[in-house]
Amino acid sequence: MSVADLQLDERGQLRHFLTVEGLKRELLESIMNAAESFASVTEQTVKKVPLLRGKTIVNLFFETSTRTRTTFELAAKRLSADVLNVNIATSATSKGESLLDTIRNIEAMHVDMFVVRHAQSGAAHFIARHVAPHISVINAGDGRHAHPTQAMLDVFTIRKHKADFSQLTVAIVGDILHSRVARSEIHALRILGAREIRVVAPRTLLPAGIETLGIKTFHSLDNGLEGADVVIMLRLQRERMNGAFIPSEHEYYACFGLTEARLDRAKPDAIVMHPGPINRGVEIDSKVADGHRSVILQQVTHGISIRMAIMSMAMRRDLGEKPA
Amino acid sequence: MSVADLQLDERGQLRHFLTVEGLKRELLESIMNAAESFASVTEQTVKKVPLLRGKTIVNLFFETSTRTRTTFELAAKRLSADVLNVNIATSATSKGESLLDTIRNIEAMHVDMFVVRHAQSGAAHFIARHVAPHISVINAGDGRHAHPTQAMLDVFTIRKHKADFSQLTVAIVGDILHSRVARSEIHALRILGAREIRVVAPRTLLPAGIETLGIKTFHSLDNGLEGADVVIMLRLQRERMNGAFIPSEHEYYACFGLTEARLDRAKPDAIVMHPGPINRGVEIDSKVADGHRSVILQQVTHGISIRMAIMSMAMRRDLGEKPA
Amino acid sequence: MSVADLQLDERGQLRHFLTVEGLKRELLESIMNAAESFASVTEQTVKKVPLLRGKTIVNLFFETSTRTRTTFELAAKRLSADVLNVNIATSATSKGESLLDTIRNIEAMHVDMFVVRHAQSGAAHFIARHVAPHISVINAGDGRHAHPTQAMLDVFTIRKHKADFSQLTVAIVGDILHSRVARSEIHALRILGAREIRVVAPRTLLPAGIETLGIKTFHSLDNGLEGADVVIMLRLQRERMNGAFIPSEHEYYACFGLTEARLDRAKPDAIVMHPGPINRGVEIDSKVADGHRSVILQQVTHGISIRMAIMSMAMRRDLGEKPA
Repeated sequence: MSVADLQLDERGQLRHFLTVEGLKRELLESIMNAAESFASVTEQTVKKVPLLRGKTIVNLFFETSTRTRTTFELAAKRLSADVLNVNIATSATSKGESLLDTIRNIEAMHVDMFVVRHAQSGAAHFIARHVAPHISVINAGDGRHAHPTQAMLDVFTIRKHKADFSQLTVAIVGDILHSRVARSEIHALRILGAREIRVVAPRTLLPAGIETLGIKTFHSLDNGLEGADVVIMLRLQRERMNGAFIPSEHEYYACFGLTEARLDRAKPDAIVMHPGPINRGVEIDSKVADGHRSVILQQVTHGISIRMAIMSMAMRRDLGEKPA
Repeated sequence: MSVADLQLDERGQLRHFLTVEGLKRELLESIMNAAESFASVTEQTVKKVPLLRGKTIVNLFFETSTRTRTTFELAAKRLSADVLNVNIATSATSKGESLLDTIRNIEAMHVDMFVVRHAQSGAAHFIARHVAPHISVINAGDGRHAHPTQAMLDVFTIRKHKADFSQLTVAIVGDILHSRVARSEIHALRILGAREIRVVAPRTLLPAGIETLGIKTFHSLDNGLEGADVVIMLRLQRERMNGAFIPSEHEYYACFGLTEARLDRAKPDAIVMHPGPINRGVEIDSKVADGHRSVILQQVTHGISIRMAIMSMAMRRDLGEKPA
Repeated sequence: MSVADLQLDERGQLRHFLTVEGLKRELLESIMNAAESFASVTEQTVKKVPLLRGKTIVNLFFETSTRTRTTFELAAKRLSADVLNVNIATSATSKGESLLDTIRNIEAMHVDMFVVRHAQSGAAHFIARHVAPHISVINAGDGRHAHPTQAMLDVFTIRKHKADFSQLTVAIVGDILHSRVARSEIHALRILGAREIRVVAPRTLLPAGIETLGIKTFHSLDNGLEGADVVIMLRLQRERMNGAFIPSEHEYYACFGLTEARLDRAKPDAIVMHPGPINRGVEIDSKVADGHRSVILQQVTHGISIRMAIMSMAMRRDLGEKPA
């Protein structure tokens, strides 16, 4: 069974959300349309809709990520679902229980959705292959592989600012090699028909053979930004950098840090994005991060709406109805 | 005041749930009947009943147990109660506050129920003796003493499969000595009139004088399983085993591990139970754990219904009404 | 902009609650009046009011305090708000993110209130100066500076027992130097017109120049208690005491521990208060803590009502309506 088949039910509707790879453009657009309708909900005084009342959503986090866990928890609560946070690092797996037994046990409690964060690539897929038919799995980041809700909120943010993906040049800058965000963004942008996708990074931070994905590679930031409509800066994972990949943060900033001067190479109305948390003065200058072209905080806001959209669509199967 | 008196109010209704010891058969049956009605709730699309809306339930965990805490939290949320998780290991007691002062303080916040997990036997009883009249205490496991909600979900699971306790031979296999689960199960099975209760364990894992409880002891698994209707495997607490009680896990499995071949000694329609988390290849073979006679995951499901039943019955006193 | 201006909106209504310093008597009284109305809510069977339904309150705790976090969480839930607990010690700030970036990010998720606990004085003020216009900030304790909700629950407790602040002599006993509680209490009592405020402490535990605040200092407990209507004992922060401030706990108790004999110096109807958790036999004798003049547990109960009052008043701005 292909991943695409795994993600969709027999009517072609979203069942799990594991990766954007292999999804159809129409589905991505319907997620963004649903997110649009939820955006208005989060701006109301009473920010709740009863769509998932009585549903139980389990945040199954095998690695700690307060930020991501928080956005999923908020999205679930605004859909009126009950949320259980299970931090597996401190849980039964340390008593020698297998991952599958942990899943089977929580699933036996009649839960409806797992939001999975795991350090290993493919963990969410593995779980999706083994859960009961009525349960949906959302991938909240697995190893270096995928972070599909982040990619969706990114393209949703781009759509808010740029009318037509087919006209866009998007530059993704930084640690492409280790970034599940970059991988997912590239897939989403290709599906939506972006004109040109560029990756900009030192050779040590680019995966081998990435050109075969039909994207352009740059080792010079100035060249990579030239004429770009969208600039996506990646977080430099300091914990992974011990001189093995970059000589020093200082030197990295000198070559690949985004400053206002460098940003002038991009189009005048270019937008600047970053998945957060940002390292000021490492991959991005504060003037850019806080400047008028930055949409970094809008990404956070859109993250709630996108997650509400994906959660409600994946569970709509039972509901037999569309989100409000 | 006897424990039985402590657990029941003046009308003989459940006030606290600390141990099954000393409870009447009728009460155990009414808990199972209530659980039966809640089982249908957890299978509905909207899995909530408003029975405990506005009630505050405090999970007071002096030792970490994600699994048990999760089942109580889910049961409480499905009854629409507000749940507070208080992990005392990281809390005010480390500032030198006494247990009683901690209890008095949380009780002053107008909470309605404490779910207590503690490494010391009798902790839940101690708290029950000292709480304000309107507060109920549920024992979620105290030392080696009792784990009464586990015992109730076990007999509820047995009742789903076997019509008449008076016809049943039940074999409990494993670390009886350290098991609060085994102690509570034995009491529940006796109250419900099980025909024969057996414990099967090496001599080092049996408490002295257990025969006086009217149960049969076996040191051979084959003999202990002969003709059994229900086989309850206990978890081998690896953390307690340092060669003091068993020579090795390997040798333990050779003598007391449940395999399909051994299970053939039991009745053809025997069911296999385990409180979880299971150690595959230590106390139970995967083929048995995942086989058609295993009801291990049903136990987890029933655990939610049983806890909903006990929580709502203990708080019904205020409500002046029965669960739906 | 003065702190008072920061706390109130253009109509003079509460926006943030950072310190009682500089607030008007009328405002303190209206908080207590609102708390009075909420006190009846917490005594009902269904302890919830829908006042903040759909609002998101974030407990932003930079230092762990289960007790304080619990009271705010309960207050928020009884107002029907959604609560997010974010423990920053284990969160993104450890990934090198600045405080301001953390705040901006959570605020972008359309939250409505931050409840802030921080080891550094002024942290809540800093956050209040930088949040978006629709967000309220409540100070849940910042360094040695302020703990205004504790002070409000204290004066609310006093008002329940004593009719007229202008007739009252209040003695605050203990570690004044390190106590944010004492500082906030002194401000609240002065605003409410207490006749005489005394601080009683060894010289090493009194801040320099405290007499200039118009309060009387005593180094003898007997003298300090003479004729007092209210005695507020402070917690001896054992963790701060290494022989630097007091010779020993034993000697401290001999000089400043509150016993029944000493309490006889106060008025016959004097009440005894303590912010908790108490150190029995260090700053207070058990007979006093559990005696009929102790209102220590009432303080805990009133803490919920006061926090419900402050939270709902600070968010009433959006609601355009008064609490029920």
